[in-house]
Amino acid sequence: VLENPVITLTTDFSLKDPFVAMMKGVILGINPKANIVDITHNITRHNIAEASQTLSMSYRYFPDGAIHIAVVDPGVGSSRRPIMVVTESQFFIGPDNGIFSSIINEAGEDTIKVIHITEDEYFLSKTGATFHGRDIFAPVAAWLSKGLEAGQFGERINDYLTINIPEVTFSESSSLTGEIISIDSFGNAISNITRDNLSSLDSSESGNRLMVSYNNAPLSLLSFYAESKGSALSAIINSSGYLELFVNRRSAADNYHIKVGDKVTVSRTH
Amino acid sequence: VLENPVITLTTDFSLKDPFVAMMKGVILGINPKANIVDITHNITRHNIAEASQTLSMSYRYFPDGAIHIAVVDPGVGSSRRPIMVVTESQFFIGPDNGIFSSIINEAGEDTIKVIHITEDEYFLSKTGATFHGRDIFAPVAAWLSKGLEAGQFGERINDYLTINIPEVTFSESSSLTGEIISIDSFGNAISNITRDNLSSLDSSESGNRLMVSYNNAPLSLLSFYAESKGSALSAIINSSGYLELFVNRRSAADNYHIKVGDKVTVSRTH
Amino acid sequence: VLENPVITLTTDFSLKDPFVAMMKGVILGINPKANIVDITHNITRHNIAEASQTLSMSYRYFPDGAIHIAVVDPGVGSSRRPIMVVTESQFFIGPDNGIFSSIINEAGEDTIKVIHITEDEYFLSKTGATFHGRDIFAPVAAWLSKGLEAGQFGERINDYLTINIPEVTFSESSSLTGEIISIDSFGNAISNITRDNLSSLDSSESGNRLMVSYNNAPLSLLSFYAESKGSALSAIINSSGYLELFVNRRSAADNYHIKVGDKVTVSRTH
Repeated sequence: VLENPVITLTTDFSLKDPFVAMMKGVILGINPKANIVDITHNITRHNIAEASQTLSMSYRYFPDGAIHIAVVDPGVGSSRRPIMVVTESQFFIGPDNGIFSSIINEAGEDTIKVIHITEDEYFLSKTGATFHGRDIFAPVAAWLSKGLEAGQFGERINDYLTINIPEVTFSESSSLTGEIISIDSFGNAISNITRDNLSSLDSSESGNRLMVSYNNAPLSLLSFYAESKGSALSAIINSSGYLELFVNRRSAADNYHIKVGDKVTVSRTH
Repeated sequence: VLENPVITLTTDFSLKDPFVAMMKGVILGINPKANIVDITHNITRHNIAEASQTLSMSYRYFPDGAIHIAVVDPGVGSSRRPIMVVTESQFFIGPDNGIFSSIINEAGEDTIKVIHITEDEYFLSKTGATFHGRDIFAPVAAWLSKGLEAGQFGERINDYLTINIPEVTFSESSSLTGEIISIDSFGNAISNITRDNLSSLDSSESGNRLMVSYNNAPLSLLSFYAESKGSALSAIINSSGYLELFVNRRSAADNYHIKVGDKVTVSRTH
Repeated sequence: VLENPVITLTTDFSLKDPFVAMMKGVILGINPKANIVDITHNITRHNIAEASQTLSMSYRYFPDGAIHIAVVDPGVGSSRRPIMVVTESQFFIGPDNGIFSSIINEAGEDTIKVIHITEDEYFLSKTGATFHGRDIFAPVAAWLSKGLEAGQFGERINDYLTINIPEVTFSESSSLTGEIISIDSFGNAISNITRDNLSSLDSSESGNRLMVSYNNAPLSLLSFYAESKGSALSAIINSSGYLELFVNRRSAADNYHIKVGDKVTVSRTH
């Protein structure tokens, strides 16, 4: 049992309503020592893929044993199952709607196990319509943080749902194509292309340079933001390890009309 | 004395300014073990009734002994008194302007006591204009969380202020009329009609169905959000136990021009 | 070593993205007992002066030993140094871009010391582009909160950067001129004129009254907000000790088109 267990929250609830606070109240009622951290409550409403990727970018900065609750749930109240994903060092609790796809893809299906949460003795007892975040996910996370085993909450399942997270594709001509997966609040456009993807391109012929293209125009691949001058669109491998399009001190998305789903290509050049 | 006492904050300060943080700094300076939870800082500016209802929806999810500070105070700096409302299991600290009316109505005036906070040895010592949230409510909550008794902060009063929270009215024809009291950030329109209100209608003749009307149009009363198809306006008893008008995955308020104060009726039908 | 050390965060990151959460994860991984408080994450993008003044208004409400991280950094990724400012009772960690100017001005350069943070054994080990907030400031703050000495993070420097924070000027005719430095979320316009500035004017001839002017119109200097009637623009010494222009229950900035940088004068009158 950890002395100060960390429980994080990722939702599309926003902070205007008291829904997030209700979840925190339930957690603290069960485990007063829980250390609750908001990842974000401003996931675009009902965007499961965005929640999945936000969680994937963030979880690695939390200590072993961290418990992550994620609730973005367009089908709330319907019959989809509450689940817990157990990786080698952390726990993920939320609806079985694909919200943990990025986590599962990265860890590999062999290294994780998924529990269908059914043991309702750990749920908030109440009547009427159920708010799973408050009535199931919050109390289960709190009990887990007190040292219960994952297996005490239900049976292992293998037919959990995953969604397609856009993948990087490699072409024969030694180039790759990815896409913009999110626009951050600075207006930077973040792609799904990782440093590792670029390394796998680059390693074949040393001395070659990488050329990034967006909308058929070549972009400079820089090492830090301040290196870019004026309002030119440039590329960088950002601090989370993803290829990102940016304009120094301005919104790239606004200035170049970049949208989620837009393609970005990288190829070797001489 | 609790080991990890919970202190919650409900204000209309927003999170842009550092006012909320100042309150937290003051609390932690007095009781470093306090566990501070934001309920919301986005109450509509100066809307005491909204703060009262938000608090009423939320406090029940917090553990016994929780201390709730609420600051929505159009008359700040004038002579209204700082008060503490003590219920059977929790504490509420804020201005004497009716902000705790929902709490008092629900608990019943017989079960609570109200203290006029006057003992300024527990206030933040300072000169100049007073910010009650930081200078009175925060330090008093922190001292209370360290185990002081409510009576140590001042004398009991009975002439505290309450405001009219819109009430549900019952007509002879076995129907009731309530009103929309808030629009949440999803665009759902929440009424003041509770599950208990509906039960008291329903119980007289078993087998009857309930008909919900808004703007002279009948609405389906559903059991969960995903049951609603297309963009039809529907009704549900939400997870807080209130009758709510919604459109599945869209904003009911935007699509049907629903405003706070709009009437909703429910009657028995065959 | 404090049992519940306080670490605050002031940034322009907003709360949509997970950057703030990554910093919190890193801190809690190093010191699970850290008590993290958000001052604000809504500093106007790249506005170093606003961050400096927000921090200056806030730090005094936190207990001795508090550690404040501030990250507003238009030149992120360039070569500017990470620094730690040590005052008599608190610590400030961030970029060497002038963000701590208000703190240093107020404390006086003689009473503080500034450390160039270089000991990378305390940094988050990683490859690729660096996000200083997460990779340097957060872990250094966490290690400091565990009882390390400031000197263990690097050498003392004296050539740190400061920026000009707008100053109040006194004229021969016994008047002073300041300016609006921020608009809060209520629309109140806060100047850089302090209660002490006014006292130094006032003390020379007792019995004189102070006249506040904005845009060549005289304003009443009131003692509390509710004293102002109608939509008149009035002045008050606010709860942080600054002269502020306000309209009771409305936005002064919207109603009187007040902007940051606008001049405000105060003079003695008979």
